[in-house]
Amino acid sequence: MRSAPAPRLLILFDSRRYLTGLTCSANRYTIISPLLTKMLDCSMTNKLFITCILIPLLIFTNSAFAQKTNSNDDYSAYLDEVRTANQFLVHMQQNTPSVLTKEGLMATRKRMMANNSAKPQLQPAVKYILGLAGNIGLRIFKPDTIRAVVLEIHGGGWSIGSAESDDILNDLMARTCKVAVVSVDYRLAPENPFPACINDCKTAAKWLLNNAMKEFGTDKLFISGASAGAHLSAETAIYIRDSLHAINKVKGLNLVYGCFDLSNTPSMRMTTDSTIILSKKYVDETYELVFHGWNKDQLQNPQYSPLYANLHNLAPALFTIGTADPLIDDTYFMEARWKLAGNNTYLAVYPECSHAFNLFPTKMAAAANQKMFQWIIELCGK
Amino acid sequence: MRSAPAPRLLILFDSRRYLTGLTCSANRYTIISPLLTKMLDCSMTNKLFITCILIPLLIFTNSAFAQKTNSNDDYSAYLDEVRTANQFLVHMQQNTPSVLTKEGLMATRKRMMANNSAKPQLQPAVKYILGLAGNIGLRIFKPDTIRAVVLEIHGGGWSIGSAESDDILNDLMARTCKVAVVSVDYRLAPENPFPACINDCKTAAKWLLNNAMKEFGTDKLFISGASAGAHLSAETAIYIRDSLHAINKVKGLNLVYGCFDLSNTPSMRMTTDSTIILSKKYVDETYELVFHGWNKDQLQNPQYSPLYANLHNLAPALFTIGTADPLIDDTYFMEARWKLAGNNTYLAVYPECSHAFNLFPTKMAAAANQKMFQWIIELCGK
Repeated sequence: MRSAPAPRLLILFDSRRYLTGLTCSANRYTIISPLLTKMLDCSMTNKLFITCILIPLLIFTNSAFAQKTNSNDDYSAYLDEVRTANQFLVHMQQNTPSVLTKEGLMATRKRMMANNSAKPQLQPAVKYILGLAGNIGLRIFKPDTIRAVVLEIHGGGWSIGSAESDDILNDLMARTCKVAVVSVDYRLAPENPFPACINDCKTAAKWLLNNAMKEFGTDKLFISGASAGAHLSAETAIYIRDSLHAINKVKGLNLVYGCFDLSNTPSMRMTTDSTIILSKKYVDETYELVFHGWNKDQLQNPQYSPLYANLHNLAPALFTIGTADPLIDDTYFMEARWKLAGNNTYLAVYPECSHAFNLFPTKMAAAANQKMFQWIIELCGK
Repeated sequence: MRSAPAPRLLILFDSRRYLTGLTCSANRYTIISPLLTKMLDCSMTNKLFITCILIPLLIFTNSAFAQKTNSNDDYSAYLDEVRTANQFLVHMQQNTPSVLTKEGLMATRKRMMANNSAKPQLQPAVKYILGLAGNIGLRIFKPDTIRAVVLEIHGGGWSIGSAESDDILNDLMARTCKVAVVSVDYRLAPENPFPACINDCKTAAKWLLNNAMKEFGTDKLFISGASAGAHLSAETAIYIRDSLHAINKVKGLNLVYGCFDLSNTPSMRMTTDSTIILSKKYVDETYELVFHGWNKDQLQNPQYSPLYANLHNLAPALFTIGTADPLIDDTYFMEARWKLAGNNTYLAVYPECSHAFNLFPTKMAAAANQKMFQWIIELCGK
C-alpha cells in the first residue's frame, strides 16, 4: 500500500479489509465506542494519535463504494470547466435538424459518429452472431488480461449511434478494467421498429453466456450502457434472470443516465428547448420516431419500462447521472427501486452535468468514467 | 469547504461527516454513555481532555438529522412486534365491505373512528372558518407553551377519516413539541368530489397565515399529514408558495407514507389482496370512488399529483415510510425530487412496517412518531 509504514500502523494497514468490512457496516459503533473509552487511559500523544490519525484512517479504510453514493466527493474544482462545456453544448445544439425527416435522421446519425475522431489503442474485432432477423455485429475489445466480459450497449434514443460510436470509452474500459468489452450493434428504429433493439441485446447476452468462457476465458459478465443503452441493459438483465436463469453470472450493471420509464418521469416532462442535449424538441421527436402511436399504458408496460418491472434478484448496479440531465428522475427512481428490491446500488451524481457529459473531455467526465471503471474492478475481485 | 483551516483542523473537518454519521444515530448514546461513566475515574488531564476537546467535538459533529436518513438506526429489536401487528392487521382486513356501496363506505368510516377509543389529554377546541362551500371545521389542540403551529391534515383516501380520528397523535404532538395543532375537517369524496378536499386545506392554510399570530402568538407554520393527508399537505405547501407567497412561514412538512402520484407509482401497481391495509381491492375501489372517470393524463396533472409539480423553494420535509407499504415508491420518488429541487429532506424508513403502522401501539410506531416530533422540535428552534 504505502512504503514502510511505522510498525504500529502496519497492523492497521494489514487489517484494512477487515476494517473496511467493519467500518462500513452499522457495527462500526461497536469498534469506535470502546476505542473512545480506552483513549482515556492513554498518554496525550496517544490521544492525539487516535484523534488525528486513527479516526481519519478509519475513514480512509472505508471501501470506495461502501458509502453507496458519491455525496461526500467534492467536485467543485471541476465546475468551471463543466459550465464552459455546457455553454459549448448549448451553442452546438442550435439549428439541429429534425430526426423526423430522413435527411435529419441521417445527419444526426452522422454527427454522432463525427464526434469520435480519436483512435482506440486496442484494435476492435468484429464478430457476427445470428439474431432473429439476420446477423448482429459484436464489436470486441480484448486486452491481454481478461478478468470479466462487459456487454456494452450504446445509447442514442434507440434510433441513432452504433457500437463503433463507443469505441474510445470501450477501449479505455477494456484496458483500465482488464475486461473484454463486447458492444452490440443492435437494430435501430424506426427502420427496425422497437423492440427489435431489445431482441438483439437479448441475443447478444445469450451468446455471451454460452460462449464467454470459450472466447474470453471467463464467464463473469457485466452489462453496461448509457441513455437508451442503460434502458436496454436493464431489459437484458431482466431477460437473463427470467429466461436464461443465469443472473448469477452477472456481476454488475453500469447504468449511465438511463431512461427507465418510457412514459417520462416528472423531470423528463420538464425538458425545454434549452435543455442540453435532450432538448424538448429532440426528446419529443425521438419518442414520435420510436414509439409512434403508443399510449401511456403501453409505454408503462413493465416489459418495456423497467422502472415498473419486478427488480428482485438482479445484480449490483452503479447509477451515474448529472444534475442537469432531464433523465435525473429516471436514475433516482430506478436506484430507489433497485435498492428496495434488495440489490446493491451505488448512486453517483455529478453537479451541473448534462446528459452524455462523460463523453466530453472534462475532468468531471474523467472522474465519472474512473468511478465506473473502479466499480467494475472492485466487483471483478468478488 | 472553508478557507484555509489549519492543517490539523483540516483532519477534523474532514472527519466531520464521519463523526456525524457516528453521533447522529440512535446508537450515539452507546458511545457517549460509557465515556461519561469512565470519566469519573479519570485524572484531571483526562477530565479536561474529555470536557474541552472530545465532547465539544462530538457536539459540533452532532445533529440528530444531519445524516438525512435513519439508515444507521437499528430497529431489529422491534421487528417481532411489528410482525405480530402485521399478522393481526391481515386478519382484521378480511371480509371488509366495499367502499363503493353506501353501506360499505359508512361502515369503513365508522370503523376508522372506532380505533380511536383512547382520550386525548388536552381538550380540543373546534373553530369554524368560511370555506368555498360553507364552514370548515378546525380541531385545535393548544398546549400551554406554543412554539409553532402545525396544520394537520388527516388521511383516509380522500373519502374517509376526520380531524377527530387523529386526536390521539395530535394531542401527543401538541404536548411533546409544544405546538398548536390545527386539524382541518376537509370535505370528503365522493359526496364532495375531488378536489374539494384540496380547496378546504387551502382555506385553512390561508386562515392560519392570517390568524396564527393573533390566535397562537407565533406565525411559524408546519404542515403535517399521513397518506392522503400527506398528498394534501404537499398540495397546500405549493399553494402557499405560489398563491399566498408565504412559503417562508412554512418551517417544515411532515409527510407520512404519502401518496404523491395519483396515477400510481410502480409499487402501488403491485398491490395484492394481501397487501396490508392498502389491499388491491381497497386501493382500486377508493380510486374508483374518488377519481371515477379520470384518465392517466388527468391523474398526472401536476396540479393534483405533486410528484409532477415544480418543487423548488418549498420547505424542509421529513418523509416517513414502512417497507411493507405499497406507497414506498411515492415516498422514495418524492424525497428524491424534493431534495433535487434544493429543499432539505430526511428519509425515515421503517423495516417491514405497513401503511398506517405508526397508529398502532408498537415500539416501532413510538420510535417513528418520536422521530417526527424530534424533527419538528429541531426545526422550531431554527
